[in-house]
Amino acid sequence: MQIARSIHAVRDAVAAARSAGKTIGLVPTMGALHDGHFSLIDAARAGCDYVVVSIFVNPLQFGPAEDLDAYPRREAEDLAGCEAWGVDAVFLPSAEELYPGECLTEVRVERLSRTLCGASRPGHFPGVCTVVAKLFNIVQPDRAYFGAKDFQQAAILRRMVTDLDFPVEIVVCPIVREPDGVAMSSRNAYLTPEQRRQARALHAALKEAEASVLSHRPSAREVVAAIRGFLASHAPDGAVDYVQIVDPSALSDVEQTDAAILIALAVTFGRARLIDNLLVDASRPDG
Amino acid sequence: MQIARSIHAVRDAVAAARSAGKTIGLVPTMGALHDGHFSLIDAARAGCDYVVVSIFVNPLQFGPAEDLDAYPRREAEDLAGCEAWGVDAVFLPSAEELYPGECLTEVRVERLSRTLCGASRPGHFPGVCTVVAKLFNIVQPDRAYFGAKDFQQAAILRRMVTDLDFPVEIVVCPIVREPDGVAMSSRNAYLTPEQRRQARALHAALKEAEASVLSHRPSAREVVAAIRGFLASHAPDGAVDYVQIVDPSALSDVEQTDAAILIALAVTFGRARLIDNLLVDASRPDG
Repeated sequence: MQIARSIHAVRDAVAAARSAGKTIGLVPTMGALHDGHFSLIDAARAGCDYVVVSIFVNPLQFGPAEDLDAYPRREAEDLAGCEAWGVDAVFLPSAEELYPGECLTEVRVERLSRTLCGASRPGHFPGVCTVVAKLFNIVQPDRAYFGAKDFQQAAILRRMVTDLDFPVEIVVCPIVREPDGVAMSSRNAYLTPEQRRQARALHAALKEAEASVLSHRPSAREVVAAIRGFLASHAPDGAVDYVQIVDPSALSDVEQTDAAILIALAVTFGRARLIDNLLVDASRPDG
Repeated sequence: MQIARSIHAVRDAVAAARSAGKTIGLVPTMGALHDGHFSLIDAARAGCDYVVVSIFVNPLQFGPAEDLDAYPRREAEDLAGCEAWGVDAVFLPSAEELYPGECLTEVRVERLSRTLCGASRPGHFPGVCTVVAKLFNIVQPDRAYFGAKDFQQAAILRRMVTDLDFPVEIVVCPIVREPDGVAMSSRNAYLTPEQRRQARALHAALKEAEASVLSHRPSAREVVAAIRGFLASHAPDGAVDYVQIVDPSALSDVEQTDAAILIALAVTFGRARLIDNLLVDASRPDG
């Protein structure tokens, strides 16, 4: 496994693979790898000949009051994990390597970036788009792999790729969950045992909402109220940032639940902001 | 010479050239080609094995009150010119081909885009950056060629390439002028004979300013006042949009003229908005 800390080094590694006729898969991460990331690596290995994992805690996508400094860094464990998972190259740039000067250029996807997480994190998605555009230009992958937990991120990046004609296919992989349903996240490490127990309510609330949608198509407003009630009683230490029901493509709020919908929520426990979501297609016959 | 009207077709043409080991040069244009464009093609032929000229009047970079509809379209003449100049492929997409849906994604370069032409054309440079990012992703050239008449555009695109790590080298070629000094521009076609006569004042004012800077280093304020006075008497039908003296890299206004400076101006005659500029390095010994 090659470890590249410079743009130059990772470009050389990829160029060698490409000239050997290999297709390139990129798994962009912020490190602190968990089974969600490893599922992306599995998908990349299944879909591409040469797999690059990037590990970079991107300052551009953190707000001034957010957890940039606290975000877990575990380089040695991450490298061992990548090695064990058959990764071909890890791109591990420093902040100085990726942003040698002030980055005056910003890539933003209008509208899709203003709802859900974007409403309370205004600079987040422009920061994500900008660093992913950089990674695409550096690695020039054929396919890039993202997790469905960050559903909005994937929708925005798909749109960026379409609008700017990046020659990259975005592959979105299912959410990987702990045995009790909690979506895997590097930020789960911030939780106290009691917060971790209450965090089960996020997925549980989504599953209750799904059952209710599939059984009697309540209005979106009713579903949101039910989820908020569930969270209030099962996760009393969590502050709800949003609970929204949106069209999965446009990410715009819907009023009815009789088509394919995304139910998405964000809840903060102390300094841990957790997100989760569930796609429900109530247009299909109810099993 | 290949004529590609679809993204698919131009990608195929470039891929064939690339797999034959050729380097790719891109000359992005809005058509209505003149000797300024042909000098870019010459430079691309000298620097690359395979030259692609794109011809696309990009609606994103025109303001609502600007000349999108009036902008000259001369496809047959442009194709004949490209053929005569040894171009390998012309990419001639329709607006529907490049923007099949609404383009929600925008690439912008902060600060550099707010001064000079950007001050009165707020959406112009984001529109330029967005379409050039698309062209770079479609053609994936090794080098792209731009004219120094659009000095600010070249500075912004260089910054975009640096900040987003596009694997493209930006090459800026000197302004090509008519025998009387007027910078070549597709928009010169809008001028009446009297306006065309007065348009000589743009370059003449810049040359007077250069002589004054090289002889006694006046303050930037004095130079701007002198240029405005010159334009008022020699181009009375022109409305001055700006006369600015800036640092050639940061494009920020300077007060002194004792270093390398860019003197830039924009003057509108009727519907023709003309720009011109001159780099002056007064830090060199005065000849």
